[in-house]
Amino acid sequence: MFKLIAIYKIPNDKNAFENHYKEVHTPITKKIPLMKEVRINKVFGGPTGKSDLHLIAELCFASKEDFKKAMGTPEAAASGKDLMSFAKDIVSVHFAEEEVLKQ
Amino acid sequence: MFKLIAIYKIPNDKNAFENHYKEVHTPITKKIPLMKEVRINKVFGGPTGKSDLHLIAELCFASKEDFKKAMGTPEAAASGKDLMSFAKDIVSVHFAEEEVLKQ
Repeated sequence: MFKLIAIYKIPNDKNAFENHYKEVHTPITKKIPLMKEVRINKVFGGPTGKSDLHLIAELCFASKEDFKKAMGTPEAAASGKDLMSFAKDIVSVHFAEEEVLKQ
Repeated sequence: MFKLIAIYKIPNDKNAFENHYKEVHTPITKKIPLMKEVRINKVFGGPTGKSDLHLIAELCFASKEDFKKAMGTPEAAASGKDLMSFAKDIVSVHFAEEEVLKQ
């Protein structure tokens, strides 16, 4: 699986963030073509109790080719533009290849 | 899915890191009970070309109960102890609940 991973730190205004994320950003992002699924990880803590993160979102693609194609679409550009409008100061975006280890 | 997510920045010595991660840390970590799977995300870039991250590892559990139980085991303690031995300065660890959005 090839992924775009967006890591969000805790926003100053959690309610405003959640509202924009759910009502605006998620619908825009779900329009990106070729995505297999979107995984939303809601951070609730860490080993010492607290975490400085709020959310980690994973946009998942079956192949690097699909990932690259998708990144070049107007839908991906729209999602990126919206992201910068509400989360510029708290988000970092990374591209990664996932390998699943069997137990 | 409930997850422990370990985010690693780029290590100074990539070869030494990879060697320890593969030969020592992964075998120790795979012994943690109740894990559904381990997802290793190898970061290869970001929207501006580079990323400051090297790896994002996800230890996945079916329920919060399993996650909590697993975290209390000697195997999890051994994995945490080993983590601190080779990645203390570059890793951050977070607990999260994953929700998968359908397209």
